[in-house]
Amino acid sequence: MTSVETEPALSAVDTLVRELATLHPEIEVLRPSPETGPYGHDAATARSANEKLAPGGTAPDGPAVALPADAKQVQALVRTAAAHGVTVVPRGAGSGLSGGASAAANQLVLSTERLNRILEVSPLDEVAVVEPGVINAELNAHLQPHGLFYAPDPASFEISSIGGNIATNAGGLRCAKYGVTRESVLALDVVLADGSLITVGHRSIKGVTGLDLTSLIVGSEGTLGIVVRATVRLRPLPVARRTLSAFFAGTREGTAGLAAITLSPVRPAVIEFFDTPSLENIDDHSGTGLRQRGGALILIEIDGYGIDEQARDLSAALTAVGGHVTVETEEQAALLWELRRNGRGFPEGQWFIGEDIAVPKSQLPRVYEAFPALEARYGVRISAVSHAGDGNLHPVISREIGPDDDPAVPPATLAEAATELVRVALALGGTVTGEHGVGTIKREWAALELSERNLQAQQAIKDALDPEHLLNPGKAF
Amino acid sequence: MTSVETEPALSAVDTLVRELATLHPEIEVLRPSPETGPYGHDAATARSANEKLAPGGTAPDGPAVALPADAKQVQALVRTAAAHGVTVVPRGAGSGLSGGASAAANQLVLSTERLNRILEVSPLDEVAVVEPGVINAELNAHLQPHGLFYAPDPASFEISSIGGNIATNAGGLRCAKYGVTRESVLALDVVLADGSLITVGHRSIKGVTGLDLTSLIVGSEGTLGIVVRATVRLRPLPVARRTLSAFFAGTREGTAGLAAITLSPVRPAVIEFFDTPSLENIDDHSGTGLRQRGGALILIEIDGYGIDEQARDLSAALTAVGGHVTVETEEQAALLWELRRNGRGFPEGQWFIGEDIAVPKSQLPRVYEAFPALEARYGVRISAVSHAGDGNLHPVISREIGPDDDPAVPPATLAEAATELVRVALALGGTVTGEHGVGTIKREWAALELSERNLQAQQAIKDALDPEHLLNPGKAF
Repeated sequence: MTSVETEPALSAVDTLVRELATLHPEIEVLRPSPETGPYGHDAATARSANEKLAPGGTAPDGPAVALPADAKQVQALVRTAAAHGVTVVPRGAGSGLSGGASAAANQLVLSTERLNRILEVSPLDEVAVVEPGVINAELNAHLQPHGLFYAPDPASFEISSIGGNIATNAGGLRCAKYGVTRESVLALDVVLADGSLITVGHRSIKGVTGLDLTSLIVGSEGTLGIVVRATVRLRPLPVARRTLSAFFAGTREGTAGLAAITLSPVRPAVIEFFDTPSLENIDDHSGTGLRQRGGALILIEIDGYGIDEQARDLSAALTAVGGHVTVETEEQAALLWELRRNGRGFPEGQWFIGEDIAVPKSQLPRVYEAFPALEARYGVRISAVSHAGDGNLHPVISREIGPDDDPAVPPATLAEAATELVRVALALGGTVTGEHGVGTIKREWAALELSERNLQAQQAIKDALDPEHLLNPGKAF
Repeated sequence: MTSVETEPALSAVDTLVRELATLHPEIEVLRPSPETGPYGHDAATARSANEKLAPGGTAPDGPAVALPADAKQVQALVRTAAAHGVTVVPRGAGSGLSGGASAAANQLVLSTERLNRILEVSPLDEVAVVEPGVINAELNAHLQPHGLFYAPDPASFEISSIGGNIATNAGGLRCAKYGVTRESVLALDVVLADGSLITVGHRSIKGVTGLDLTSLIVGSEGTLGIVVRATVRLRPLPVARRTLSAFFAGTREGTAGLAAITLSPVRPAVIEFFDTPSLENIDDHSGTGLRQRGGALILIEIDGYGIDEQARDLSAALTAVGGHVTVETEEQAALLWELRRNGRGFPEGQWFIGEDIAVPKSQLPRVYEAFPALEARYGVRISAVSHAGDGNLHPVISREIGPDDDPAVPPATLAEAATELVRVALALGGTVTGEHGVGTIKREWAALELSERNLQAQQAIKDALDPEHLLNPGKAF
């Protein structure tokens, strides 16, 4: 978009900011400036934005930013923005991985960072009522003394907000047993595009009065409404937890081990699979010696009653298919989970693309088997850690930046390999995005997955609830 | 509706039936006649229809009925009906309890009874792919040899279809632990109002490409599309199951016992609560002696690993609050569950209304406490069995038919008491319908629960997906 094209819209934003200052001085609003730049990006788009910034170059203006402190302020912001034709980008903690919260200088970012109160914890109803800006980990820290927990645990749980988790229907490690975010969201207060505030859902687990608008809002990436309050389901902390590791000779043998878990009667809380290059990445980055223990790792957390019998049955199932199983000590378990989360570091000196494909879990071995041919064809390296219990892989497709390469210009083959891997997942009955959402980055891939009529239906629903396309236009579908 | 008003529409149905016979002779279609009468009602509306029929009177014409055998036939039926302006009522097994499948003589009922194939069971993906007419219990019988089960278990599981369960987002007894139907539906093939066929959802547990149309279709009572295929989630059969009974002195003491379960670390698969009059009803009808064991009963099924520790912890929790806890033998357990399902019989010689309210589970005691005042005020009797784990009550509000009463004319106070009880549930933060759906019968109550803007949003979505209101008009919202 050239500056000529954006100028009229920019002046609309300026007018909006001035009017908000007059009409709603109680709401903090930041005018577009280089300082608001970080509000224009999420974790996925920030890197490319930084790369495009020439050394010593002037940072461009970010979007206008509003920091409402209650639902009424959100309503006022939406109404005033609509009156000026300025589109609104809802924003949680900015930890998204698909560009869902990215915003241009002619838009108003509505940050939920001040809507961060835990309003209620009810042990007898097993619910918490929270504002969207509450950080996932903070909610769980708050629940700990009650002996309760909120199950959805995206890897970003220490930095991501409940509102952002809801917007993307975030997954995590514990989903196979405890479900994704949608299964833990019972009711929502939502500000619609016309500024009205509605309550959807129920404080009880059951409730079928009318269409399930709660589930429709969850995962809609801020395109249908802005969540200003959520009633979420809680669960009692398990009476016991234990970590098992199962090392296998190589990737192929390891993926075969996953089927053995499915065919066993045990349903672990977490099943993480590491292929050979992922173990090598960790050893390289963290100085560990995982590769000495094997060429693939299934890292498992079991929880609940009968923990010894669960460990016994699972060990037997995994040993029978060639796994070397260890019930880890608490200390060693903590180390292994930390390596899972942060052990690989960021690929340095490399171009890379991270993916979030998911396949029917029986097809996980087929995805890993597809890596070598793609590596050879596109001259890339592919490794993947998986949430194996739900068939969700996070492949990293990378290529070294050579001494003569311009780091800002990744080779086209990198993106081509990434798209080809998405096609592999789709051919296996899978999906483009298991838990990160479509945002801006995966819209082309989403079009490979969804039929035209399906996309039309989604667009019709968007048109029905937000006819002016005020909320987060150009995202999700 | 008078016959003068319906004649033009009836002739449209006749024309439609004739055209279908010409264009699609492969589809069995029944023309409106007294014989199709049963297709005009579900389990809720059949009774009142029969009561209205004068002895010896001629039965009125039922709706036209189509019995498609595959998705293509469903598409053809929807398109042809649309061309003739005849509205379509999707119908499962007709076991609904809210009038959701009721149909008039000027409508086309699209019965899914011949779409009854179990297309696939995949133990490695833990999914089954089924057509909508498959009966819930038949699916589970088919899964048993695989060591798997489909969790949603509405009390009608022996007669209700998966498609009907999906249409109402059916609940059941095991929902607190295993979720309602929505949590077990991964993907759907749906025929939309324009006759197009779309696939929504994923075969994997995770998948967030675009809006969650799967969840939107689940519970939409056939108003947004017709499900022709479903991919449902399966689970391994638990390694152990056990039934515990906890008898308490009376209803009040029993509801207090429910809180003790919530505060314990055990999460039973089933928690059914019987108040004093419910126990009396069972003893009267089934010749049992439950009242001798106590004045209220919490009937519990626990399952999974560590079954002895679970039983121990739960018994301790319930005993501490005055419960007389028995771990039941298998034989005795089977008898108790049979009494739960069928032990009360149908109230004979009485007018009655059955409800399906749900409240936040901490509020269950408040609902039971409200019964005596309502009984006194309206001259009715109220008893309720509850799915206590999710706050879902099924009150029966009844009144004896006296010798001078006309059975076809129930007193207005009966409906007034029922509405007042709905208001009690709503005042406690609850809902009009926990698992049966709104259908035709609960639309007025639904309007007490949902705000006007919420209903507008639902209507806008309906308009977006079915602009001509072809599919099941006048139902759900």
